[in-house]
Amino acid sequence: DSKLKIFTCNSNPKLANQIADYIGIPMGESHTTSFSDGEIQVKLSESVRGSHVYIIQSTCAPVNDNLMELLVMVDALKRASAKSINVVIPYYGYARQDRKARSRDPITAKLVANLIEKAGTHRVIAMDLHAMQIQGFFDIPVDHLLGVPILAQYFRSKQIENPIVVSPDHGGVVRARKLADLLNAPLAIIDKRRPEPNVSEVMNIIGNIEGKTAILIDDIIDTAGTIVLGANALVEGGAKEVYACCTHPVLSGPAMDRLENSPLKEVIVTDTIPITHPNPTNKLKVLSVAPLLGEAIIRVHEELSISKLFEI
Amino acid sequence: DSKLKIFTCNSNPKLANQIADYIGIPMGESHTTSFSDGEIQVKLSESVRGSHVYIIQSTCAPVNDNLMELLVMVDALKRASAKSINVVIPYYGYARQDRKARSRDPITAKLVANLIEKAGTHRVIAMDLHAMQIQGFFDIPVDHLLGVPILAQYFRSKQIENPIVVSPDHGGVVRARKLADLLNAPLAIIDKRRPEPNVSEVMNIIGNIEGKTAILIDDIIDTAGTIVLGANALVEGGAKEVYACCTHPVLSGPAMDRLENSPLKEVIVTDTIPITHPNPTNKLKVLSVAPLLGEAIIRVHEELSISKLFEI
Ligand SMILES: Nc1ncnc2c1ncn2[C@@H]1O[C@H](COP(=O)(O)O)[C@@H](O)[C@H]1O
Ligand SMILES: Nc1ncnc2c1ncn2[C@@H]1O[C@H](COP(=O)(O)O)[C@@H](O)[C@H]1O
Repeated sequence: DSKLKIFTCNSNPKLANQIADYIGIPMGESHTTSFSDGEIQVKLSESVRGSHVYIIQSTCAPVNDNLMELLVMVDALKRASAKSINVVIPYYGYARQDRKARSRDPITAKLVANLIEKAGTHRVIAMDLHAMQIQGFFDIPVDHLLGVPILAQYFRSKQIENPIVVSPDHGGVVRARKLADLLNAPLAIIDKRRPEPNVSEVMNIIGNIEGKTAILIDDIIDTAGTIVLGANALVEGGAKEVYACCTHPVLSGPAMDRLENSPLKEVIVTDTIPITHPNPTNKLKVLSVAPLLGEAIIRVHEELSISKLFEI
Repeated sequence: DSKLKIFTCNSNPKLANQIADYIGIPMGESHTTSFSDGEIQVKLSESVRGSHVYIIQSTCAPVNDNLMELLVMVDALKRASAKSINVVIPYYGYARQDRKARSRDPITAKLVANLIEKAGTHRVIAMDLHAMQIQGFFDIPVDHLLGVPILAQYFRSKQIENPIVVSPDHGGVVRARKLADLLNAPLAIIDKRRPEPNVSEVMNIIGNIEGKTAILIDDIIDTAGTIVLGANALVEGGAKEVYACCTHPVLSGPAMDRLENSPLKEVIVTDTIPITHPNPTNKLKVLSVAPLLGEAIIRVHEELSISKLFEI
């Protein structure tokens, strides 16, 4: 369909190109740069009048720049008379401030949803939002895709013996449950408890991991603190080997060193966020979400159900 | 009035503190920092319930970070039940993309106005918006202040003999006219013309500058290209001395070197944007807008007319 166009900014051009390749159309011609003072400039080099446009942009680091690129791109497409503006956000940043955890906290996940909508977006396609509730922060349709099937496929292909899926905290149990189901594996949960204030946390493992290959799963690995503490606790608890996996490799600050120096055997992630570290650990395996997002775009554009994408 | 509170983020803390001092109240306690991955975190350390809050934040470089700081701060204040949220933007970035100059251009000045409003702002106090029309991009009250009286005061105190005010282009004539009126000086205009495509511009000066002290005025000095070309043309045209002045010293890229190496005698700016260059030229004189903005906040808070601020 000549009316489907894909555009991207600068957060993740490799993924965007792979998505365009999957769909089988050339990337829309545009240039997102900045002026001398740092203000973002978007140039659309082709007409979008009457087109259904899909913008692929993760709001990963540098998060404020990537978010503004997206908003300025939406504004340009809107004023250039695109028929519909569909924003594909493989990684949705600012998601962890999704509630008032302390009094006077902002709720940035809602703020960003408002900004994206206000700029002129008609639809969002997202992956593994930190909380499912973020879908409700939008008043436009949100198609929400999961990384778990892609991660499961990798572990199945490895034919791991005696696997057990482990959630690093109580918040991640639903996600871990899905992976366990797909792998036909049991589930364990790491139960962190602070016995007294100002005493360090104790890691208590609920479930029997002895002699098993543990697979830790989270949505985001950021500084890798949680996942590495979990890996240590699993090794101490008698796990034979420990893998970690997540959809979004934020990997900020000390993350890469921590992963490298941890007992983790492999760290399986997806390409929703590009790995920009100059010296990534060999333990990282990056799986692509391009076929999933490409298929989702085709199905959304053809007004087909995307629930088929969840059948594995 | 105990219900008036001032907050600031990180763009221009010095100016913000001077404004609080002028008003005679302590700065509201807050901390705007970032998480390890670069996402902005705002912590309000005092109650704002029922307060009329004024946030002082310029959207200068790093523009996307400063803008997001402002938006997250507004969101936090809104959810903390501030009675009114008044945003004081000494320098309003993204203002120069204020129309579709080329087809498919975004209009970022309107986009940013929408974002600020959507976050929950009730009122804006701005200074020397690049185009007066930007006031109309907001659907909330905008109080618009001018830097020209502050610049005029400086030149009057210098008792310059035989001054002539010069607009560097046709777009700046209204502003230059105001300064000329305040200084009781004549007006000249630099008329740039490209005789043929791909031939460099010719600077033609409308008005008699011979033997006079020329004062170039603009709203923004960014890369300083325009102002230095203007200064050269004025010297060639027989001006005795050339000063330049502006409200907003963006001073990006080669600006500082260009000013230093130009025939300009002095460059008078205000502190709407802090000078962050490690080695600023001695030609720079920075005048403070703190008394003007402080007075404006007091008058807005007391529901008095601010037109008094324009009487010199
Ligand atoms: N970008 C971020 N980096 C680190 N921590 C964050 C970030 N955003 C929010 N948080 C904190 O993470 C907590 C929420 O994480 P969670 O309990 O996993 O949903 C909140 O207490 C937030 O203050
Ligand atoms: N941040 C910026 N830096 C340099 N040029 C800009 C910037 N924003 C907009 N422009 C350009 O400046 C022109 C508008 O300037 P003006 O004619 O002075 O209003 C437009 O053609 C814009 O493309």
